[in-house]
Amino acid sequence: MIEPVDLNQKFSLFSESWHPKIVGELNDNYVKLARLKGEFVWHSHAREDELFMVLQGKLKIRLRDGDLEVAEGQIVIIPHGVEHLPVAEEEVQVLLLEPKSTVNTGDQENDRTVAAEWI
Amino acid sequence: MIEPVDLNQKFSLFSESWHPKIVGELNDNYVKLARLKGEFVWHSHAREDELFMVLQGKLKIRLRDGDLEVAEGQIVIIPHGVEHLPVAEEEVQVLLLEPKSTVNTGDQENDRTVAAEWI
Repeated sequence: MIEPVDLNQKFSLFSESWHPKIVGELNDNYVKLARLKGEFVWHSHAREDELFMVLQGKLKIRLRDGDLEVAEGQIVIIPHGVEHLPVAEEEVQVLLLEPKSTVNTGDQENDRTVAAEWI
Repeated sequence: MIEPVDLNQKFSLFSESWHPKIVGELNDNYVKLARLKGEFVWHSHAREDELFMVLQGKLKIRLRDGDLEVAEGQIVIIPHGVEHLPVAEEEVQVLLLEPKSTVNTGDQENDRTVAAEWI
C-alpha cells in the first residue's frame, strides 16, 4: 500500500527521546523520526553515512574538530567514520535517513543502544 | 567539509521546474531539491525506490490504481517498478531521495529527461 506519511502525525505517537522510529524504507535505507533532548554519546558508524534533517528546534552536532549548529529546515550529512555527538539543549525533532544496518550508537554499544521500531 | 545545508537558501538559487538539483549525497544516494509545476510524464524506475517530501505546496501523484495527495510535511515513497505521474497544480517544492543512478524520467527518455546538477 503506497500512502503518504504525515510526519507530525507520527510524532504525536511517541514522546521518548533518543528512540528513533521507522516511518519508511527505500533502497535498503530506513527513514526514521526521533525526538532528541540532552546529550547523546560520541560514536561513529563504520560504513553508514547518516542524514539529519531538523524539523523542529535547533540541533548541535559536536565533531572532533568543531561544532555544527543545524537549524529548522536544514540538513546535514555525517559521513561514515566521522565521530559525532548530537546535543539538543531543548527538544529537537529530526528526520533521519540511514542504511537499515545502522545502529543508533554506531561503534559504541551501551545503555543508549536501542533497536528502531516501526510506528 | 561537513556543513549544514539550508533548504530554503538552496531553493533561492533556482527557479525552473522539473530540474532537480543535488544538495547532498550519502550511501550512493542523492538528496535533491526540485520545483514542480504542472504535469510531468508517466514513468517508473526499474530498480530505484524514490522518496518525495513535500516542503511547500500540495503534490498529486497519480498511480495507475488511484491518485495520492501529498501535503506539506508529508513524505511518500514510490517503490521501484511502480508507474507514477507527479502533478502540481500550483508550484510545489519537494525534497527527493533516490539512488545516484536514478534518471528523472525513469524508463522514459524524452524532452523532460534532465541530468541533475549540484547547487
